[in-house]
Amino acid sequence: MFQLDSLISDFPILDQTIQGRRLVYLDNAATTQKPMAVLLASRHYYEAVNSNIHRGTHYLARLATEAFEKARQTVAGHLNAATPDEVIFTSGTTDGINLVANVLALSGRIRPGDEILISTLEHHSNIVPWQMLCERTGGVLKIIPCHEDGSLDQEAFLALLNERTRILSLTWISNSFGTVNPIAEMTAAAKNAGALVLIDAAQATAHMHINVQALGIDFLALSGHKVYAPTGIGVLWGRADVLNSLPPWRGGGEMIKEVTFEKTSYNELPFKFEAGTPNIEGAIALAAALDFLNGTGLSAIQKHERELIRSAADALSSIPGIRFYGPDDRAGALSFNVEGVHQYDLGTLMDQMGVAVRTGHHCCQPLMARFGITGTVRASFAVYNTDKDVEALAEAVGRSVAMLR
Amino acid sequence: MFQLDSLISDFPILDQTIQGRRLVYLDNAATTQKPMAVLLASRHYYEAVNSNIHRGTHYLARLATEAFEKARQTVAGHLNAATPDEVIFTSGTTDGINLVANVLALSGRIRPGDEILISTLEHHSNIVPWQMLCERTGGVLKIIPCHEDGSLDQEAFLALLNERTRILSLTWISNSFGTVNPIAEMTAAAKNAGALVLIDAAQATAHMHINVQALGIDFLALSGHKVYAPTGIGVLWGRADVLNSLPPWRGGGEMIKEVTFEKTSYNELPFKFEAGTPNIEGAIALAAALDFLNGTGLSAIQKHERELIRSAADALSSIPGIRFYGPDDRAGALSFNVEGVHQYDLGTLMDQMGVAVRTGHHCCQPLMARFGITGTVRASFAVYNTDKDVEALAEAVGRSVAMLR
Repeated sequence: MFQLDSLISDFPILDQTIQGRRLVYLDNAATTQKPMAVLLASRHYYEAVNSNIHRGTHYLARLATEAFEKARQTVAGHLNAATPDEVIFTSGTTDGINLVANVLALSGRIRPGDEILISTLEHHSNIVPWQMLCERTGGVLKIIPCHEDGSLDQEAFLALLNERTRILSLTWISNSFGTVNPIAEMTAAAKNAGALVLIDAAQATAHMHINVQALGIDFLALSGHKVYAPTGIGVLWGRADVLNSLPPWRGGGEMIKEVTFEKTSYNELPFKFEAGTPNIEGAIALAAALDFLNGTGLSAIQKHERELIRSAADALSSIPGIRFYGPDDRAGALSFNVEGVHQYDLGTLMDQMGVAVRTGHHCCQPLMARFGITGTVRASFAVYNTDKDVEALAEAVGRSVAMLR
Repeated sequence: MFQLDSLISDFPILDQTIQGRRLVYLDNAATTQKPMAVLLASRHYYEAVNSNIHRGTHYLARLATEAFEKARQTVAGHLNAATPDEVIFTSGTTDGINLVANVLALSGRIRPGDEILISTLEHHSNIVPWQMLCERTGGVLKIIPCHEDGSLDQEAFLALLNERTRILSLTWISNSFGTVNPIAEMTAAAKNAGALVLIDAAQATAHMHINVQALGIDFLALSGHKVYAPTGIGVLWGRADVLNSLPPWRGGGEMIKEVTFEKTSYNELPFKFEAGTPNIEGAIALAAALDFLNGTGLSAIQKHERELIRSAADALSSIPGIRFYGPDDRAGALSFNVEGVHQYDLGTLMDQMGVAVRTGHHCCQPLMARFGITGTVRASFAVYNTDKDVEALAEAVGRSVAMLR
């Protein structure tokens, strides 16, 4: 088990006081803070290495290329990809899902009446790209409903699968409710029906062991900034045979083999899907973040975070009229409302007490509509959160509710 | 005029020795080095501000949102945009051009036989997206040829314009040859023919004053990393009325007004085109880079760089068999070959002498084909280059050529 005190001291932002108070940061599902190892990786890159990659003959260009490709290998190792060529650097999860939706649309594989299967739990980023795809292709969006406890209705899921299901695009962990979907079982059923499977791992990457080969999925999208790395970098992993069968999306440098004005041929993986100068520093910092994650130990992180979520739920459950969303076995986020209190007012008062949580629809308006609410208060946890943070959370909710009622 | 010595000391990477030598970095058209002001802006963001934006009620979320939107205002001011809403943050120039090509394709505005006009000087990033657009829409790519001196053939350009020309997409400065295109005059002619105009300012942003309103253009795309800012951030500026008339590209958070599974409505500018968590730190660092540019003084930078390019051309012109590409009045890049010497071998030897230049086709294969070459040696200049760098360049070329002949 890691030493929490010394781990916390590695996050400079946690060392400051905000409005005269210690920062209690419980908005980790929105974005995580960055450890020194990640900040130093970025700093070292710009102070000693910075150069454009792949096409340079000079020393720094070679150094930058090596560091960038080593980052790709680190990501591939972390995901257990069959080869680093399956790792496409993107600007984030949204970019990765849009990439898949666009190349599927361009491929001609989606015909009128073909079905795209998502769930009620999805973030707008895993809804809107598919709506846009359907608009272009005549595809039809199908929705897996969820139970009152925020878990997906597996019977309904199985009933929705059929020979027209082209892709199941599913979040691993709900950013709103912390629901952990049984993606291995659902993938097996979807593959059995002949569908492709994309997993939105924006939330999962910071909390779960990922093994893309064991899962049997076709695509997985993640964001650096949700896993202790900078904004503006993400990964789309795709199975090589699937990626090879799809057309490119963005055109430009890197993704071409040969350009003439008459005819352009495209590059091999992974470059075929990486047009233009990538976020070189971001990729290197993401690799440093994954090294941090593995160095700290994902199992230990999981255990720590689940204990925090459980004790937070326990501490809050004594507040009269509180309702939690999502099943008991949550990961990352704990979402709730208190009867007679607006979530926005609650969040605002909590902020004044130094506790940073998120309120609102969490980019999941259809999920909120399903529960007849406009939003929730969401406390979301990371490796650097502590029992003291949980105490501060419970105290802030208690005092705020007392003031608002 | 800025003090060159003290300016250089603001770039930590220039202070190191590479393979035992002072770094002579003349690969600025590929990517620029970063001043402390930019590095500190990034560092401050992650050490004191980092939070996700726009949807947060807590203190850091407000701070991050303010810093991000202030960065947008800085960019808008630098470009003389009519409003900050016209500034769309992207991951770079390639992303910006692809955005425009894709939304034009989706808009249904491009019909079979409609013409897309680019030039022989374009980077692959301003060729391939349009080839992909033509493949989807039945549009036809038309090419403005260039003269033997690397300037565009204006007569041919005017002859190519007609009522089917839908867009002129043109680089301001050639990344390969340093040619500065007369974009104001060319824009006036294209607008007169009823075409949209997109300017690829990837190279120009570090060297030219930009006034999008005075130019009368519709779109301008730029990359942060070519103008002293980090990788993974760029800007697409677009005229509000044009952007408003076009559909969105990527779907996800931020870009929506309301999502239901039946029907999604899109957000106002600029958010309509910004899906997902943006590169928040990158945008803030880009604003710091533009502040650095304006604080140093663009006119002084231009003067300094042009003197360096001219004296480099003078110093190299005594080498027997050297051929320069591009017109005499270059900006940014000085491209050449030496008879009987392969550009790759020349670049490799120069690297061993501590001089970083780029060799190859510079992502401009059609331009290289036009001149019957596979590539050039390209020395490209930035504000921190000095007379000593020019001397080192001339000496390295001279010695390398002597060894290779």
